[in-house]
This record gives sequence, C-alpha cells and structure tokens, in this order.
Amino acid sequence: MSRRTLKLGAVLLGVGGPGQHRTWLDPEIPADASVDIDWYVARAQEAEAAKFDLVFIVDSQFITPDSPHHYLSRLEPLTLLSALALQTRNIGLVGTATTSYNSPFNLARRFASLDHISRGRAGWNVVTSGDAGTAGNYSRDEHYDYATRYGRALEHVRVAQGLWDSYEPDALPRDKEAGVFLDPTKLHALDHRGEYFSVVGPLNLERSPQAHPVIFQAGDSEEGRDLGAEIADAIFTHAATLEQAQAFRTELRDRAAAKGRDPENVLVMPGIFPIIGETDEEARAKQDAILGSKSFERALKELGRPFGWHDFTVYDLDAPFPDVRDAGERSFRTQANAISKLARDENLSLRQVVERFSQSWSSPFVGSPETVADAIQAWYDAGAFDGINISVNVPSEFALFTDRVLPILRERGVVRREYESSTLRGNLGLPEPENRYAAARAAAPQDEPVLVS
Amino acid sequence: MSRRTLKLGAVLLGVGGPGQHRTWLDPEIPADASVDIDWYVARAQEAEAAKFDLVFIVDSQFITPDSPHHYLSRLEPLTLLSALALQTRNIGLVGTATTSYNSPFNLARRFASLDHISRGRAGWNVVTSGDAGTAGNYSRDEHYDYATRYGRALEHVRVAQGLWDSYEPDALPRDKEAGVFLDPTKLHALDHRGEYFSVVGPLNLERSPQAHPVIFQAGDSEEGRDLGAEIADAIFTHAATLEQAQAFRTELRDRAAAKGRDPENVLVMPGIFPIIGETDEEARAKQDAILGSKSFERALKELGRPFGWHDFTVYDLDAPFPDVRDAGERSFRTQANAISKLARDENLSLRQVVERFSQSWSSPFVGSPETVADAIQAWYDAGAFDGINISVNVPSEFALFTDRVLPILRERGVVRREYESSTLRGNLGLPEPENRYAAARAAAPQDEPVLVS
Ligand SMILES: Cc1cc2nc3c(=O)[nH]c(=O)nc-3n(C[C@H](O)[C@H](O)[C@H](O)COP(=O)(O)O)c2cc1C
Ligand SMILES: Cc1cc2nc3c(=O)[nH]c(=O)nc-3n(C[C@H](O)[C@H](O)[C@H](O)COP(=O)(O)O)c2cc1C
Repeated sequence: MSRRTLKLGAVLLGVGGPGQHRTWLDPEIPADASVDIDWYVARAQEAEAAKFDLVFIVDSQFITPDSPHHYLSRLEPLTLLSALALQTRNIGLVGTATTSYNSPFNLARRFASLDHISRGRAGWNVVTSGDAGTAGNYSRDEHYDYATRYGRALEHVRVAQGLWDSYEPDALPRDKEAGVFLDPTKLHALDHRGEYFSVVGPLNLERSPQAHPVIFQAGDSEEGRDLGAEIADAIFTHAATLEQAQAFRTELRDRAAAKGRDPENVLVMPGIFPIIGETDEEARAKQDAILGSKSFERALKELGRPFGWHDFTVYDLDAPFPDVRDAGERSFRTQANAISKLARDENLSLRQVVERFSQSWSSPFVGSPETVADAIQAWYDAGAFDGINISVNVPSEFALFTDRVLPILRERGVVRREYESSTLRGNLGLPEPENRYAAARAAAPQDEPVLVS
Repeated sequence: MSRRTLKLGAVLLGVGGPGQHRTWLDPEIPADASVDIDWYVARAQEAEAAKFDLVFIVDSQFITPDSPHHYLSRLEPLTLLSALALQTRNIGLVGTATTSYNSPFNLARRFASLDHISRGRAGWNVVTSGDAGTAGNYSRDEHYDYATRYGRALEHVRVAQGLWDSYEPDALPRDKEAGVFLDPTKLHALDHRGEYFSVVGPLNLERSPQAHPVIFQAGDSEEGRDLGAEIADAIFTHAATLEQAQAFRTELRDRAAAKGRDPENVLVMPGIFPIIGETDEEARAKQDAILGSKSFERALKELGRPFGWHDFTVYDLDAPFPDVRDAGERSFRTQANAISKLARDENLSLRQVVERFSQSWSSPFVGSPETVADAIQAWYDAGAFDGINISVNVPSEFALFTDRVLPILRERGVVRREYESSTLRGNLGLPEPENRYAAARAAAPQDEPVLVS
C-alpha cells in the first residue's frame, strides 16, 4: 500500500520551542503579532503557498505576568480561524478548544460553522487545559482531576459527534417547487444523558462539508493517549528523540487497533522546531544563539508552568531539585513528573534542571537544508511520525523551510506537490465519518422503522 | 444640541416579520442562504455600500421541525461575523449571544477578539434565550426563571466589562529596544465572586479598539427593560405603533437616567419591516400577498413558540383561546402574556388569535418610497426611535430601501452620507468606556498606590 505523503502543519505563535521567549523581539515580527489579524493572514497564505495541510492555533485561558509573551494577549482561536477562512482556499484551519471549560453544544456548533464557512477545512485540537489556574476563570475553585478531565473530554467529543449527525445528509431537500424544506424523519435528537453532560439536541446546523471536522488530540499522559486512540484523527505531541517518537506512534496505533480502529486513520504529528542554516555549523550557531538568549531568571520562572506556575525562585538553586510533584497534579502532570523523575534519577540541583530544560535543549532538526530534509525523511521512513507541525514564527526562517527544505522532500516524493482535495480530511487522506442514522437506515430492512427523532 | 443621524442596522435572516416563512422560497435567495457565507458577505457589503451602521445576527440554540426555516440550520453568529470582518471595512458586526448558556470569560474573549479582528466594529446583542427548550442542550432540565435569567445576564455583562478592562490602555509597551513587553502594574485580575459567577481573570487579551464592544440588549419584560437601561448602549426591540414606540423609548431613557446614565447614550433601535412599492397601492398589495401566503396551519404552529412551542393543534379552533400562560412562563413570557391578555380582553377564539397575529398583521412602513421615508422620518422626529434595524432579506427589496428610500432621507439630513468613524461606537456616536483602573489611577494622589492586580 502506498503510504501517505508527509503531512505538514504550521503552528502559529505556539507551544514552546527554543525561541519562543524572543519571538516578539524579532525585527521581522510585529511586537503585537498575537493580536494582529493581518499577521496571521500573511502566515496562513505563506503556508498555503507551500501546500501545507493546515495551520494550527494553540490556546490557553489563564495567564500570569510570566506567561509566554504571545500568550499574554491573543485572539481566541475560532474567531481567528474564521477570519482566515475567506482569506485562504485549501489550507486546513485547526483550532484548540478545551473540553474542560466549554459546553459540547456550543463547541460542536462553532466547529461545524467553521467547517461550513471554510467549505470543509475545520479541525479541532481537543485539550483539557493544562494550566490549573484556568479553573478560576470558570467559577471553579480547582481544576478537575485527571480522571474527570479526560472523562469529560471523551464524553464531550462523543456528544459533539452525535450533534454533528443531527441532520442526515439528505435531510434538507429545500425543494422550492414542491415547497419542502425539511424531511423531518431525517432530523434526529441525540437525547444524550451521560456522566458529565445531558444534551437533547438536535444541533441547529446541518451536516458540514467534512461531516465531522477533523479531530486532533493533545495530551501525553496515559489518559491522554487513551483518549487520542479513541477519538482522534490526528495527535499533536512532542518528539524529543527518534526512538521516543517511534515508540509513541507504535503505541498509539496499537491502542487504536485494540479499540477496533484502523491505525492508518490516526496520524501522529509532533511539533518540531527546525533550525536551518546554509551549513550545519551555521545552524548550530543559530541554535546556540537562541538558547543563550534566554535569561536564567526567565527559564526559572517558566519551569514553574507545568507545576501549576509553582514559584521556584524561593528555593536554593544548588540544593537538590525540590519535590513539588503535588503542585503539578492538576496541571501538566505528565511533564511535571518527567522533570521530577529526571531530577531524582540523575540527582540534579534546581539550577541543573533549569539548564537542562531550557538552556541546553537541542533540536533533532538542526543543520543545512539537506541535513534537515534528511533527518525529517529518516524519521518519517522509520515510522516516527505521519506528519509534522512546524513551529517557526520568523517569516525568513519559515521561508528557509519552505524554500530550501521542502523542495528536497518534494523531489523525493515525501511531501505533496499539489493539494489533492479541497477539504482538510481529503488532504490528510482520512475517511469521511458516516452519518449514524443514515447508516442504521441503510442496514435495516426497508419496511422496518428504526429511527426515533 | 444637534441630534444624531438616524442609525441603520440590517438584520440578516432574522426575527419574524411578515415574510419570514417564505424567505427561503424566494427565487432571489439561495435556499441554503442561512449556511452560505457568500450570501452573508454580499448582504453585508450591500449594507455597507448604503452606509448602514451595522449588520445584526439573531440567534437561538433550540429547534423543532416547526422552527422558522432559516433557524433550522444556521451559522453560529460570532464565527459568521468574524468571517465578515475582513470582507468589510466600516460596518458594525453585531452578534447575538445568550448569557444563559455561555460563560462570561469565553464570551468576553470572543467579542474582544472580534473587536480586534474587525478593528473596532464588534457588537454583542445580549439575550437570555427565549426558547425554554434550550435548557436541554446545556445539561439542564428546565430553563432558568425570569429572575435568574436576568440576574445572570446583568452579572454576566458586568463580568465581561471587568475582563475587558484587564489591561490598561498602556499596559503593553512592547518596547523591543528596552526589552519590555508588559508593565505588570497595569495588568489586573478582576477577582469577581458573585451570585452566579466567580471569575478571577485577567482576560488574556488586551484592550480592543472600542475598549468594550457595543452592547445591545433584546428582551421587553420589566426585567429586560431594567437590564437594558443598566447596561445597554442600544436596545433591539419591536415597535407596533408610534405611540408604543415613543412610550418605550421614553421609559428606557427615564430608567437609564434614574440609574445615573446619560439617556443620550442608550439608543433605541426597533426592528422594522418596510414594504415598498412604486405606489402605496402596489406596496399594500405586496403586503397582502405576503400575509396571504402563510398557511393557517403554519401560523397555528408558530403561535406555539412564545408559549414554549406549545402545541395549539389539540384545541378547538372556535372555542375561546385556551389559558396556557403557564406554558410561556420560562419562554417568551412577555409575548405570551400579551397574546393571552388580548385574547381575554377581546374574547377571541384560537382561530381569531392566529389570524390576528399572523394573517392580518400590518406594517407601519408600507407604501411608496416617499411614503415610507415620510413615516420613518415622522417616527424619528417624534422620538419613537434613534435608529432602525431593517429586516428585509430579498436583495431586490433591500435595494428598494437603499436606493429609493434612503436617498430621500439623506437629502433631508436624516441619515448619514459618509461614515464618521472606523469604529461602530464612533458611528453610533457613543462614548468610549474608560478603563476602570486607569481612571482610578488618574483620580488618586500620585504617591498613593491604589491598585492591586
Ligand atoms: C503537544 C501538546 C500541545 C498542547 N496544546 C495545548 C493547548 O494549546 N492548550 C491547552 O489548554 N492545552 C494544551 N495541551 C495540554 C493538554 O490539554 C493537557 O492538559 C496537558 O498536556 C496535561 O495533560 P497530559 O498530562 O495528558 O499531557 C497540549 C499538550 C501537548 C502534549
Ligand atoms: C426584538 C427582540 C429580539 C430578540 N432576539 C433574540 C435572539 O436573537 N436570540 C434569543 O435567544 N433571544 C432573543 N430575544 C429574546 C430575549 O432574549 C428574551 O429571552 C425573550 O424576549 C423573553 O424575554 P422578555 O420577556 O424579557 O422579552 C429577543 C427579544 C426581542 C424583544
């Protein structure tokens, strides 16, 4: 079977990476890029010109003065993506939205609206909110524990999928001559009563071009991987080493298969941060400059984020890393525990942890265009990922990737030359979900009424 | 003092009116207009060409097979308006959102995002949801009672306004040379703990071009009028007769004044349905044709809506109108009670009520362009309204208004020739809200710290 081409996403102003702290300082980038719609339009159009599958918008709803600069003030993802929809034609529009602090009816409706407006290019990155402080903005004293976070997430997505099926594909004949707008036998109430949500339905919006917007999932814990295997068309994750990435993808595919899904329909797409120079040396020097530009003080503060913005400035830097795992329990627990474990295993001081995590980081994709293309292809061939979400915000650096790296990969048949489809699902090579009621109708004997609306 | 010009809104596919049931049948309108973004773009651009202040999108989140055709399947208002933002330059973008089934943090963020994206043209029509069945889509067995609905609405808007003030106007210096992105003393947590919501803040979005998006309010009960007088920049309402409209506007202004507000800053803008012909007779014939085209059966079903979609088909049509006021208690109570009262006062049968409410309705704005212009001006001069929200969906009929009625009003100085401002607030002649923290800072002695973030 011929494998898909490597899928490409462009993360706009998002998720970490070595240079995030100084993005706003870059002379090429307006200091207020995160609220400047023109800036986003230009980036999306560049990515589309390079035949990217999608732009990706990350999100949060909680800030402290130490939050990453572009997180302090930024546009809400779906409002942003809807504005991009009519400024682009082929590129997918993937927005992050949390199942912890939204109702399924509202989110199902908004993503389906985006899918209509973009003519089939909407995607939803399902998250549970990592920052524990988010709870305080939604009338809660505390963030949900992991079981509840992921329990809600699963039920939330299932309800949304049910709502997206409210209208069968041919439920709205809109026959002006016959005067028939609706076939009421093909409009269905969901009547969902679950652990976290009760939703009667139907959704007041017909089937959108993709039937269901593409579902991404981001969250690496046991619970998160289980959710991804269950509901995701694609997984947004990290990838530190080839071996880790291979293992992650294999595990996700196995989990999906164990749930009766075709693993080919679960794409693993980690975020990557290529650093490209004319030569490998130039690229490595670029990386060193980026890493060196982050102050220790800032790195120390940012270390607090996975631990619920724990304040690490109160500790002795040269004493053993403090045991603050509890602080991460309702935040980014997986990341907090990984940091704590490494510190314990290697007996690191707080200072060493800060250095390890933000100042001696090294991208697996650093080098000349040829080197970076080779590395991407090698990982791809080794089954480390189905696609990559590129986090490069500086336009000239992004251009190095599109103009120097992509042509090499295109020449080798690794990435596409032209869009295959006008929908995101089509470009990702994902099947279109069947309408549950139409499917039941097709399966049932003709004269037996199976549907209750 | 020179009065404002008459303000103009265009309601796209919305709220009742004599012809709504047959809009989808019109050969000029795509049968799926309510989900066709191109259709909305064209209508918004036409309204902008005619120097309208705003387009207005109504909303609901509950349908039955008997819902108005274009309500059965339609785009979510903010997703829709954001797509329009980059296709227009001057026209305001007002979307309906319910305080009953949204969280203030999410709505505040989405409207502020729209305000950034549109460069100052966002408006929020605050409603509490009229259809009692909406509750079932949001994990509730029952819709809130009126006290709760409007209590939540007031607190919700106050929280949103607080969140919009999170960043003082100069809180983000973003000085690349000095390396200063944020002035943390000018970023404020709201720390709201109220009856219905607890919201810590701050909002993760800086002050938008209008500081606060323009607030509309729609809901005519005692509670609704009180809310409007308290929080609204503009009121969306009905206007059946000149006297009613004058009384409503006077009352709203008095209520606003009693709350210490300048009544000049509360614009009353009812929805109106002009029916225009070459001659008065032609226009009246048009109206008769529209009214005559609605079947009694459909009118009988639609009568159920204010009463929580009560099923009136079970009653004897010629018996006295049934007492079903309870059914309207958590829906459109004001409208349900008005219908019930009229039926009692005039001893009407169910059949007569149906006829009165949908088949012998008469617009106060029917006639030749001159007649309609005269009527609008007369009402305006008599203080019946500050502006009007025109509900005319058929493009050729809308063109009759813009091309034949507006030039007369323009000639007389009643409506504008050119936009005065690039923001909706500016065009409506409304002041820009002051940031509460900056105001406190300005009022306080220089050396006394007054702010806690
Ligand atoms: C690659 C990646 C990207 C993420 N992006 C977001 C995001 O944009 N917004 C958000 O609220 N959470 C985001 N999350 C956080 C998850 O929603 C989750 O809350 C967090 O990772 C902790 O869960 P975990 O232990 O399952 O990873 C992301 C997580 C990962 C791994
Ligand atoms: C002119 C007008 C327009 C309205 N538009 C909407 C709307 O678009 N969506 C909605 O949910 N409710 C809408 N409402 C309903 C109100 O939110 C309210 O729930 C309803 O009118 C009952 O409240 P009341 O008795 O105070 O009028 C509208 C009300 C009026 C008077």
